[in-house]
Amino acid sequence: MMGEQVIKQRLRVGMVGYAFMGAAHSHAWRTAHRFFDLPLTPELTAICGRNVEAATEAAERMGWASVETDWRELIARDDIDVIDICTPGNTHEEIATAALAAGKHVLCEKPLANSVAEAEQMADAAEAAALRGALAMCGFTYRRTPALTLAKRFVDEGRLGSIRHVRAQYLQDWLSDENAPLTWRLDREKAGSGALGDIGAHSIDLAQWVTGQRIEGVSALTHTFVDERPVGGDFVGLGGHGDAANAEKGPVTVDDAALFSASFSGGAIGIFEATRYALGRKNAMRLEINGSLGSVSFDFEESNVLNYYDSRDDAEAIGFRRIIVTEPEHPYVGNWWPTGHGLGYEHGFTHQVVDLVTDIAAGRQPSPSFAEAAQVQQVLHAVERSASSDSQWQALETDRTEGGAQ
Amino acid sequence: MMGEQVIKQRLRVGMVGYAFMGAAHSHAWRTAHRFFDLPLTPELTAICGRNVEAATEAAERMGWASVETDWRELIARDDIDVIDICTPGNTHEEIATAALAAGKHVLCEKPLANSVAEAEQMADAAEAAALRGALAMCGFTYRRTPALTLAKRFVDEGRLGSIRHVRAQYLQDWLSDENAPLTWRLDREKAGSGALGDIGAHSIDLAQWVTGQRIEGVSALTHTFVDERPVGGDFVGLGGHGDAANAEKGPVTVDDAALFSASFSGGAIGIFEATRYALGRKNAMRLEINGSLGSVSFDFEESNVLNYYDSRDDAEAIGFRRIIVTEPEHPYVGNWWPTGHGLGYEHGFTHQVVDLVTDIAAGRQPSPSFAEAAQVQQVLHAVERSASSDSQWQALETDRTEGGAQ
Amino acid sequence: MMGEQVIKQRLRVGMVGYAFMGAAHSHAWRTAHRFFDLPLTPELTAICGRNVEAATEAAERMGWASVETDWRELIARDDIDVIDICTPGNTHEEIATAALAAGKHVLCEKPLANSVAEAEQMADAAEAAALRGALAMCGFTYRRTPALTLAKRFVDEGRLGSIRHVRAQYLQDWLSDENAPLTWRLDREKAGSGALGDIGAHSIDLAQWVTGQRIEGVSALTHTFVDERPVGGDFVGLGGHGDAANAEKGPVTVDDAALFSASFSGGAIGIFEATRYALGRKNAMRLEINGSLGSVSFDFEESNVLNYYDSRDDAEAIGFRRIIVTEPEHPYVGNWWPTGHGLGYEHGFTHQVVDLVTDIAAGRQPSPSFAEAAQVQQVLHAVERSASSDSQWQALETDRTEGGAQ
Amino acid sequence: MMGEQVIKQRLRVGMVGYAFMGAAHSHAWRTAHRFFDLPLTPELTAICGRNVEAATEAAERMGWASVETDWRELIARDDIDVIDICTPGNTHEEIATAALAAGKHVLCEKPLANSVAEAEQMADAAEAAALRGALAMCGFTYRRTPALTLAKRFVDEGRLGSIRHVRAQYLQDWLSDENAPLTWRLDREKAGSGALGDIGAHSIDLAQWVTGQRIEGVSALTHTFVDERPVGGDFVGLGGHGDAANAEKGPVTVDDAALFSASFSGGAIGIFEATRYALGRKNAMRLEINGSLGSVSFDFEESNVLNYYDSRDDAEAIGFRRIIVTEPEHPYVGNWWPTGHGLGYEHGFTHQVVDLVTDIAAGRQPSPSFAEAAQVQQVLHAVERSASSDSQWQALETDRTEGGAQ
Repeated sequence: MMGEQVIKQRLRVGMVGYAFMGAAHSHAWRTAHRFFDLPLTPELTAICGRNVEAATEAAERMGWASVETDWRELIARDDIDVIDICTPGNTHEEIATAALAAGKHVLCEKPLANSVAEAEQMADAAEAAALRGALAMCGFTYRRTPALTLAKRFVDEGRLGSIRHVRAQYLQDWLSDENAPLTWRLDREKAGSGALGDIGAHSIDLAQWVTGQRIEGVSALTHTFVDERPVGGDFVGLGGHGDAANAEKGPVTVDDAALFSASFSGGAIGIFEATRYALGRKNAMRLEINGSLGSVSFDFEESNVLNYYDSRDDAEAIGFRRIIVTEPEHPYVGNWWPTGHGLGYEHGFTHQVVDLVTDIAAGRQPSPSFAEAAQVQQVLHAVERSASSDSQWQALETDRTEGGAQ
Repeated sequence: MMGEQVIKQRLRVGMVGYAFMGAAHSHAWRTAHRFFDLPLTPELTAICGRNVEAATEAAERMGWASVETDWRELIARDDIDVIDICTPGNTHEEIATAALAAGKHVLCEKPLANSVAEAEQMADAAEAAALRGALAMCGFTYRRTPALTLAKRFVDEGRLGSIRHVRAQYLQDWLSDENAPLTWRLDREKAGSGALGDIGAHSIDLAQWVTGQRIEGVSALTHTFVDERPVGGDFVGLGGHGDAANAEKGPVTVDDAALFSASFSGGAIGIFEATRYALGRKNAMRLEINGSLGSVSFDFEESNVLNYYDSRDDAEAIGFRRIIVTEPEHPYVGNWWPTGHGLGYEHGFTHQVVDLVTDIAAGRQPSPSFAEAAQVQQVLHAVERSASSDSQWQALETDRTEGGAQ
Repeated sequence: MMGEQVIKQRLRVGMVGYAFMGAAHSHAWRTAHRFFDLPLTPELTAICGRNVEAATEAAERMGWASVETDWRELIARDDIDVIDICTPGNTHEEIATAALAAGKHVLCEKPLANSVAEAEQMADAAEAAALRGALAMCGFTYRRTPALTLAKRFVDEGRLGSIRHVRAQYLQDWLSDENAPLTWRLDREKAGSGALGDIGAHSIDLAQWVTGQRIEGVSALTHTFVDERPVGGDFVGLGGHGDAANAEKGPVTVDDAALFSASFSGGAIGIFEATRYALGRKNAMRLEINGSLGSVSFDFEESNVLNYYDSRDDAEAIGFRRIIVTEPEHPYVGNWWPTGHGLGYEHGFTHQVVDLVTDIAAGRQPSPSFAEAAQVQQVLHAVERSASSDSQWQALETDRTEGGAQ
Repeated sequence: MMGEQVIKQRLRVGMVGYAFMGAAHSHAWRTAHRFFDLPLTPELTAICGRNVEAATEAAERMGWASVETDWRELIARDDIDVIDICTPGNTHEEIATAALAAGKHVLCEKPLANSVAEAEQMADAAEAAALRGALAMCGFTYRRTPALTLAKRFVDEGRLGSIRHVRAQYLQDWLSDENAPLTWRLDREKAGSGALGDIGAHSIDLAQWVTGQRIEGVSALTHTFVDERPVGGDFVGLGGHGDAANAEKGPVTVDDAALFSASFSGGAIGIFEATRYALGRKNAMRLEINGSLGSVSFDFEESNVLNYYDSRDDAEAIGFRRIIVTEPEHPYVGNWWPTGHGLGYEHGFTHQVVDLVTDIAAGRQPSPSFAEAAQVQQVLHAVERSASSDSQWQALETDRTEGGAQ
C-alpha cells in the first residue's frame, strides 16, 4: 500500500539526447518539485544516447539513474512514464509515435518535426494516444517565460482590446562570422530548415498563443548569406570560430534568414523576422503586440521585463510601463525569489515541467499539443512555399487546428 | 557695390504652405546662419497661402517679410531665389516644375509627388533646370539627424563591413482611436497613400541612403484597420479625438499600415513596417543595419543616440555602444552645444538648410535630388503593386536612378 | 498711436556676455515669440562685450542690433528694457544691482553670485527694485525642461504623496583627462566653486523646486582629483585636450567633485553628487524622487522622458511609465511639434524667455527670484562649510527664504 | 576502497535555517556540480531548524537527507563537513565559532554579525581554525553575479585606470507602504541594523572588492521614515500588506535608509545609499565606478548586463558598451547556456558554492574571509557612529584588514 502510494506520486522520466537541450531539461526535471507543489514527483530514471560512454558521463553529470543506448529499449522499459525527446528534428516522429504507442507520455522538443507530413502523423498519433491516457506536449518553452505568460494574460483579460499588429523578431548573431563551422543546424536533412525552424518557430508559436489568433496566410522572403562553411572546426557554444580560410568546406543547405508577413484569424497583421546574422543581437527574441486599447512589448535580452502601454492612463502620465515581472501576482514567479530578483533562461523549462506534470496528473491535455505544434509546422511550410514562389501569398488551411492556437 | 555685395550674400526664400512643415522650415531658415557659417544668408522674403488673413498671421508669427496668395505670383517675383514647397503632395509637381522653369531653386517636402509619373516629370524638370543653374532638393529631413548622418558615415568608413540586414520601422499611434477624425492625410487624392507614403517613405530613403544600396525588389502587405472616420471633429496635433460615435463619417481611402520585405543592390535584405496604429509608439522611426563587421541601431524616440556594435572589440568587453551623438567629432553637432546637451526634432530642418545653402552657393547638386526622390516614389509604387497582387515580388527598374541612392 | 502700440508690445533686451550661454540666450530671445503667443515681443537691441570686434562679430551672428563695450553704457541706454547677464559669476552682483537701480528688468545666469554676501545684496536689490516695477529672475533653466516641469506638476498634484527620497546626480566627464587645460571654471576667483556651483547648483534648485521643500541641513565631502593643469592649451567645448605633459601648469583652486546629503523642510532626505570626472557621462543631470504614493525619475541624457511610478496601478501591471513628454497635455510642448518629436537643450532657454516675458507683462515676480537663488547660494555655502569641517552637519537658516522654494 | 574514494569525493553539508536564504543555498548545493566540474560533490546531508515539522517539510522540499532541531547536534555529527549558516545575524557568532571549533568548514550568510565585537571574534576564530584546516567564508553572494565579477576583472586588468568615483545604490521599495508589517528585519536586536546592514552591506563589500580599495572614512545620515508598524499582519514576500490602521503596532528600531560618503584607500571617493523606500525600485543594486581610463555601471534589475565605457575608443564611436554578460569568455557563464540566454538571481549562490568547494578542495582560504566580512562590519559601525554624531567624519582603522579587500 505504501509502495503503491509512492508509485503514484512519482513520474519516471526517460530522456533521449543530452546536448544543450538535454541539460536544460534535466535541470528542470531535477528542480521543479523543489520550488512548486507538484502532484507527482519527477524522477530522472534513464537517459538514452548512442554512445555509451558519453551517455554515462551525461547521466552522472545531469543526475540520471541509468543509461540506455537504444531509444527503443528506453521506451520498452516498464519503469518509465514519460519520454522526453531532445534530439534533432529528423528523429522526432519515429521516437514520439513509438513512445505514444507504448503508452508513454511524451514531451518533444520543437520544432515538432522537419515536415508537415511527419508533424501531422505525430498529431494523429497523439490524438489516438490521448484516448488511451498517454499525453503529448511540444516544448515551445518560451511560453513559460513569466513575462510572456503575463502578455497572454493581458490579452485574455482584454487589456489590449482588439489586436492589430504583431511584430516578432528573433535575432541572433552566431553565424555572422563567415568562418563559423558547418554544424547540423545548417543541414536541411537534420534541421529541416535554418533560422526559420530553429528560432522563427518560437516566434510563430508565441505570436499565435499570446494573441489567441491563428495565422491564416503568409508572404515570405528567405535568404542564405553564406553558401558554404568550414567542415568541423572548433565549435564553441552555438557558433564558434572555424579553422581557417583554406579548410575544407561544405554546403549550407538551409535559410540564414527568413522574413515574412502574416494575417491572423482575428484580424491582426504580423511581421516576422528570424536570423542568426544580426550582429550584436545575442538572443533577441522580441514580441510586440499593438491592440486598440493597449500594447505589450518584450525582448528576451531583458527577459524579466514586460513593457505595457495602457491607452486609458491619463494623458499627461501615459507611457510604456516597464513591468519587472517578479511580483507574487505574476505567473510562476511567486514560487521563486522576492520581488526584483530575476529569473534566468532555464526557468522556462522548469515551468514547462510544472505545467506538464500538473496536466498529466489531472489527465488533461497539455498545451502546446502536437496538433498545435503541427499547425506551426504548417506555417513554416507555407513560409517556405511563399519564399520559393516569388513571395506569393500562401493561405493556410485551418480545419484541423480549429481552436489549436488557444 | 556695397549693395551688390549684400545681394550676393543673401538667399531670398519664398515658402508655399504654413502648417506644421511650414513652421519647421521657417525656423530652419531663421536659425541656420545663427549657428553655422553659411556662404549665403537666408532671408524669409515671402510666404504664400490662399487665405490672406491666415497667411498674414503666419507671416508675422514665423517672420516672413511679405505675403502672396497665389503661388504663381510668388514664383513670378524677382526678389525670390528659392521656392520652398510645404504643401500636400498632390500640389508638388505643378508648383515645383513652374518654379524650376522660372529659374528658382526648389526645396520640396516629401513625398516628392503622389505618383511615379508626376515624380518622374519633376525629376526631368530638375535635371533640365540644373543645366540652367536652378537646383532642386527633396526634404527627406531625417538624413540630417546627426545620429543617422553618423550611421551613414560608419557604413561609408567600412565599419559595418558587408551589409546583410536592414530593419526599418516607422511606428506612430495617432490613428489608434477609431474616432480620430478624417483628415487630408487619410484621403488618397491629397496624400497619395497612407502610412506608406507619409512615414514609410522616410524609412525607404534612409535605408537606401545609409547603406548606399538601392532597393531592387519588394513584396508587400498593406492593410486598413478603420474604414471610415468622423468628418471634421476636433483636431489636435496629428490625430485628435473625433466628436462622437454618431458623427457623420467619411471613407478612409489609404493604407493604415504597410509591411514589406526588400532586396538591396549590394546583397542586403530588408524588412519594413510603417503604421500609425502602434499604440504607445509616438514617433518610433527606427533603423537597424547589420553588417559582417558591425551593426548600427537607431530610434527617433531617442534621437540623440546611435547604438553601434563593433565585432572587433575584444570578446569579454563587446556590446552595443550607446553613442550620445553630441561630440564635436559628430556631424553638425559641433556648431551647437557642449557634449551631452541634445538636439531636438527641428534641428534636422536647420541642417537641411545648411546643406542646401552650401550646395546652392557652390553650384552643386544637393542630395536627395528629385531623381533620388522619384526612385523612392518608384519603391512606394512597387510596394502598392505587390500589395494589390497577393504580395507577389515586384522588381524595380534601376536604370534611371543609377547611383541615385548615393 | 500706432507707434505707441508697437512700443508697448516690444521688450527690448540688452545682453552682457556672448559665449556658450550668450548663444543659448540669443536663440531664446529670437525664437520664443515664433512659437508662443507672448504679450511682448522681444527685440535683440544690444549686446555688450569688452572686445569691440568680437562683440560685433557676435552681434551679427546672433542677431543683435547694436553693440556696447561697457555694460554701464548698456544700462544707461533708454531703449533697453531688460538686461540679460551671461558673464561669469564674479561680475553678476555689480551688473545686476546697477541694472535694477536703473529700472531695468534683469535676467541673471546662475549661480546668482560667487558668495552668499553678494547673493544677498542682489536679493535685497531685487526686492527693492520690484517695488519700483523692475523684476529680476535667475536662470535656473532646467526648470523649463518639460519633463522636469511635469515632475513638479506631479508633486503638486499629490501624485507622489509624501516625499521621502531625493536622489540628484549631475555627472559630466570633461575633466577626466588630466591634461585638459586650466579654464576660468577651475579658478575660484572667477567661478566661485567647481562642480558644486557650476552644476550642483542646478540640482539643488531643481530638487527644492520640484519637491516644494527647502534644504534645511547638509553634510558634505568635496574633492579635487587633479591639482594642477596645463595653462592655455587647445580648448574644445567645455574641456578639450591640453598641449603636453611638459606644458606650464597652473593650480586648480576649486572642487572637482562634491557629494552631500541633505534634509528637507517637508521631511524628505536627499543625496547629491556633482562631478566632471564621471567618465562616459556627458550631461547626466539626474533627479529621482520617491514618495509614499509614487516616484519620478529623470536623466537629461534622455531629456524628453520622465519615468513615473504610480503605486496605485494594479499589482500585475505596475512599473515605471516611460512618459515621452511631447504630448499636448505636457508643459510647453503643445507649442512645438507633434507627439514624439522631441525637443533639445536650448528649448529650456526659450521657455525661460516665455515665462519671464509673461511675468514682466503681468507685473508679476518671476521665479526663481533672486531671493530663491540666494538661498541656493546659502546651500552651496553650507556644503563648503561642511566639507571643510569634517563633513559636520550644517543647518541652514530659513527665515529669509520663507516660501522661496515654491 | 571504492567506498573510500566516494567518501573522499563528497562534501557533506549541514545547513542551519531554511527560509528565503535556505532555499537559495539548497538550490546551489544541489545544482553546482551539475554544471561545473567540482573537485568534491556536495551532499545535502542535514538541515537544522527548531521546529521539527517545519524542518522536516523543508528537508523534503529542498532535498536534505536528514533533520536536526539543535544546531549543536548538527555540529556534533561526524558525517558533516560544512556548516552553512542561513539564520538571522544575531545567531551567527555562536554557531560559526562552535562549528569552526568542531573542525567544520563554515559558510555564513551576511552580514557576518550584528556587532563589530562579534564579527571580530568570528574573524579570530576563523583565523585560528584555518591553521587547523577548517575554512570560513561569508556569503556576499553578489560578487558571483557574472557582470560584477567581470567588473572586478576589468579593474584588475587596468581597463579603468585610476579609480576616482564609486557610486553605489541599493534601492528597494517593500517598506513604502506604511502598513507593511513589523518583521524581524525591523528589529535591531535580531537584524543589527535596517537597510544599512541588510542591503547596504552588499554595496560596501562590492565597492571594496571590485575596486580593490578599502574604505578609510565615512560621513553618514540615517533616517527612519515610519516609526511604528502593525504587529503580525499578512506577510507576502519581503514586505506584504499589514492588516488595518487599527491593528496593534510595534516600534521600528532600525534605520529605513542610510546615506553616506566615503574615501577609499586608493584615492577614490564614494557615495552610498541604501533604502527600502524607493518606490518602484524592486532590487536596484547599482554600482558605477569611474576611473581615469574607463567606467563600469551595473544595475541588478538588469543583472545580465555590464555597461562599460572605454575612453580609448575613437571619438566619434565612443559610448557605454552594453555588454550582455553571457559569452563563453565571461566569468562562470560558459558553463551554462548559449550566448544571450541570461542567468537569474540564484546563479550567484551556485557560483558561490563552486568557488567555496574549489577552495576547500585546494585547502585555500576562500574570499570573502571572515576578516574581510568583519571589516565590512567596521564600516557599517562607522556609518552608524557618524550618523549619530552630526554626520561627522569617521576614520576607519585599517591594521587588521590589511589586504582584506583583495
